[in-house]
Amino acid sequence: MSQQSSGKFITLEGGEGVGKSTNLQFITGWLEHRGIDYVQTREPGGTPLAEQLRTLLLEKREEAVDPTAELLMVFAARAQHLNTVIKPALAAGKWVVCDRFTDATYAYQGGGRGLDRALIAQLEQTVQGALRPDRVLLLDLDPEIGLQRAASTGAADRFESEQAAFFRKVRAAYRARADVAPERYAVIDAAQPLAGVQAQLARELETIASNQ
Amino acid sequence: MSQQSSGKFITLEGGEGVGKSTNLQFITGWLEHRGIDYVQTREPGGTPLAEQLRTLLLEKREEAVDPTAELLMVFAARAQHLNTVIKPALAAGKWVVCDRFTDATYAYQGGGRGLDRALIAQLEQTVQGALRPDRVLLLDLDPEIGLQRAASTGAADRFESEQAAFFRKVRAAYRARADVAPERYAVIDAAQPLAGVQAQLARELETIASNQ
Ligand SMILES: Nc1ncnc2c1ncn2[C@@H]1O[C@H](COP(=O)(O)OP(=O)(O)OP(=O)(O)O)[C@@H](O)[C@H]1O
Ligand SMILES: Nc1ncnc2c1ncn2[C@@H]1O[C@H](COP(=O)(O)OP(=O)(O)OP(=O)(O)O)[C@@H](O)[C@H]1O
Ligand SMILES: [Mg+2]
Ligand SMILES: [Mg+2]
Repeated sequence: MSQQSSGKFITLEGGEGVGKSTNLQFITGWLEHRGIDYVQTREPGGTPLAEQLRTLLLEKREEAVDPTAELLMVFAARAQHLNTVIKPALAAGKWVVCDRFTDATYAYQGGGRGLDRALIAQLEQTVQGALRPDRVLLLDLDPEIGLQRAASTGAADRFESEQAAFFRKVRAAYRARADVAPERYAVIDAAQPLAGVQAQLARELETIASNQ
Repeated sequence: MSQQSSGKFITLEGGEGVGKSTNLQFITGWLEHRGIDYVQTREPGGTPLAEQLRTLLLEKREEAVDPTAELLMVFAARAQHLNTVIKPALAAGKWVVCDRFTDATYAYQGGGRGLDRALIAQLEQTVQGALRPDRVLLLDLDPEIGLQRAASTGAADRFESEQAAFFRKVRAAYRARADVAPERYAVIDAAQPLAGVQAQLARELETIASNQ
């Protein structure tokens, strides 16, 4: 909850092609209009080392990747990103808007790969301590539609190459997390036209900005 | 203790330039002479993905690497290596001879970087379960001598660029581990001429091979 700072930590979550990157631009435009100082970033990634880890995670490879190895790479990138980018920005009073964060780990490595949630929670505690996003903006969409949208934006990476069942589990895991902590999640219907998504995002941002 | 197999899991440990790689060649020669089937490997590394992680770990970079990120990268590489190379080899009855393993994590990330040993133990449990080397061959040497030896073998990597105090802590952490579990460690004086080191290694290998 980034308690020690006045900056807000906002994450954008959801499966492939739900509109995270598109709407991140809308959010940063909104923040600029308000004159709010922010850092825009993404996971996995956000620092040179963490971006190198992202490349290793996403590239398709002959070798089958051990799920625990994948999980540890995700949290390694997160530790680097959090300590060198996110925490300093929040401490300086900036908003941090991040394209994916730990909810994606619960959804992809937990839901998709079936890794133990208790192990993910243990690593979350190790890497983040008490730090959690102030608000998670979850773009919820039938994965078939999302994958069709994502297909227009380039070749499939190692995750996008998974089977339909994988993406259904990812979506279900995201929704399950929002269900148990509704105060931290805004679930947004990403099937509606972009204008509708963004009207809802603007209302969310108003609420977050007014909770000082 | 690789309980479910007849293969032996032997690791070579010690600071920079103590002679791990040199003596690994001696060990594999000994195994070949005996007609023992083995896999020679190293950490971090041992698979294409794990070797890519090794490159990220060792290369010198502008960015300060968060110690927890470093630790998680080490264990990510280990999970991949263990599950795709080491466990299958041991299960097939082969010996596995590995240049560094988890003792190096306790020595470098624990001793050198000062990370909590309990966190390392937690990750060891997560990644390895009950699997531990059958025997750790610890080459013990004053780090000043080791660094002089290593300097002859190429440019210093990110670890080799650390200060003298770092290496003294690494050596102390290795020795402390051997002290509390003498039944699993052979501490070998690596300051003696190579012939003496290898005579001692040969005796160790005889003992390991006869403990069927
Ligand atoms: N509400 C919407 N209706 C229709 N198309 C949309 C909508 N939102 C985004 N798109 C389009 O879907 C495609 C994927 O969007 P975007 O790249 O923002 O998704 P993403 O969640 O970032 O995907 P990825 O998971 O691959 O990073 C883009 O072409 C974008 O213009
Ligand atoms: N007992 C010894 N006496 C003198 N020189 C030695 C001895 N053992 C190894 N060397 C020399 O020290 C140098 C470093 O040895 P080696 O590369 O095997 O060490 P290492 O432990 O693998 O180092 P690194 O940690 O850098 O991988 C080599 O030139 C090697 O020939
Ligand atoms: Mg995107
Ligand atoms: Mg070596």
